[in-house]
Amino acid sequence: MGVPDEHIHPVATGVAAQTVAKHQEPQDLIFYAGWFCPYVQRTWIALEERGIPYQYKEVNPYKKEKHFLEINPKGLVPAVEYQGKALYKSLILTEFLEDAYPEYKPNILPKDPYTRAYVRIWVDYISKTIVPASMRLTQAQDPEKRKEYLQELLNAQRKLGEQVKGPYFLGEEFSLVDVALAPWIVRDWISVKHRGYRREDAGEAFKNYADNLAKRPSVINTSSDEEHYIPIYDRYLRDEAQSEAAKAVRQGRDIP
Amino acid sequence: MGVPDEHIHPVATGVAAQTVAKHQEPQDLIFYAGWFCPYVQRTWIALEERGIPYQYKEVNPYKKEKHFLEINPKGLVPAVEYQGKALYKSLILTEFLEDAYPEYKPNILPKDPYTRAYVRIWVDYISKTIVPASMRLTQAQDPEKRKEYLQELLNAQRKLGEQVKGPYFLGEEFSLVDVALAPWIVRDWISVKHRGYRREDAGEAFKNYADNLAKRPSVINTSSDEEHYIPIYDRYLRDEAQSEAAKAVRQGRDIP
Repeated sequence: MGVPDEHIHPVATGVAAQTVAKHQEPQDLIFYAGWFCPYVQRTWIALEERGIPYQYKEVNPYKKEKHFLEINPKGLVPAVEYQGKALYKSLILTEFLEDAYPEYKPNILPKDPYTRAYVRIWVDYISKTIVPASMRLTQAQDPEKRKEYLQELLNAQRKLGEQVKGPYFLGEEFSLVDVALAPWIVRDWISVKHRGYRREDAGEAFKNYADNLAKRPSVINTSSDEEHYIPIYDRYLRDEAQSEAAKAVRQGRDIP
Repeated sequence: MGVPDEHIHPVATGVAAQTVAKHQEPQDLIFYAGWFCPYVQRTWIALEERGIPYQYKEVNPYKKEKHFLEINPKGLVPAVEYQGKALYKSLILTEFLEDAYPEYKPNILPKDPYTRAYVRIWVDYISKTIVPASMRLTQAQDPEKRKEYLQELLNAQRKLGEQVKGPYFLGEEFSLVDVALAPWIVRDWISVKHRGYRREDAGEAFKNYADNLAKRPSVINTSSDEEHYIPIYDRYLRDEAQSEAAKAVRQGRDIP
């Protein structure tokens, strides 16, 4: 199969390219990103929502910079460099940004301890239920399995939809639940095209919620042109993707 | 198979029974527990470490109280009731206790944002790598699979061991990493007895760390007599356990 993802477009395009262009100046916080990755987009949305100053650096998966690998030996993205040290993992990074930059408003974690925990419960649900269901559907080759996984995804989304106050999960306030889910919403056209998925089949509440997430400026501003996602998702649709998440789904392991 | 876990001992025993006895008075915080569950023990250790006032309530999995199911419809434990509302999930509860009871010292999440994120990265590693590897090993029936899963568990533990400053993960400070791992350490005698596991095979650093966790008073004080765990773990060893986690491992799904 050769180098697995050699045809990945090297940089963000479309609206996301304009966002990248605005974040080239050196800053205390360096954001190491891959423009196509939904996990990267979570952290990116949080940075944009809160107006935290950051320098965007695209990581070429086949030519990782020496300095980046020194501070982040596994070369994972998303990552941030902060005071010379690296941190990684999309949701941990968003929590870190809350802790390290409390003064940048709006916060995406509510202040009230109960609501904060309630948000974390549903973020956990998205990560352990909706994201894996969505990946299983994309990677499934057997038509029967596709039917089963589609139904699982719709059930999981419907259940989340029932909790949504609207327009966002908590109501008017944009929170970590929205951040955690949005990247998979703006990629769902792939399942619409290839797996018979439709937002409305997960119920009206979920559909309205998903539509609202897709219209959020921070989500739009971190999304590239659809055409450049196609060669990447074609590999997922053939179940040949070699990302850590794709491999975990294939092996029936927890997504790392 | 009948009712799957009908032979579970109904209440905590040994040292844990003494801890339960000290926490019978009504309090603002009600802790809904199952004495045998490692996830429950995580939250219990955090409560004990920090001296937060709580009322312990044992949840009988076959006779759940009406009030408990009203506030927590899936009946999951561990759960807490706080101001009439329920929250659940072991790690989210420990974070909640940090947020809701900041004045109870010592905190198990460091104040420094970088260290806090570093702790969360390794907690995530424990949940997604060490715990599933340990469960796969316990549930495996095929001898070849057992060899493979044993090696996976040892490799995962060795990698964690390399990060340990000693005596605990961060050094002298007891943190959420220690809380997240300890319940699986005090149950590892099951794998020693039935799966050829030995702490020392994960390296000296890991072994010393595990030994220190097992000696921590909050860990001892939340552990029941070994004999009563046996009928429960016999079901895992035969791969007949019906907990959500056991089913997820069997199906190759993310542990919820």
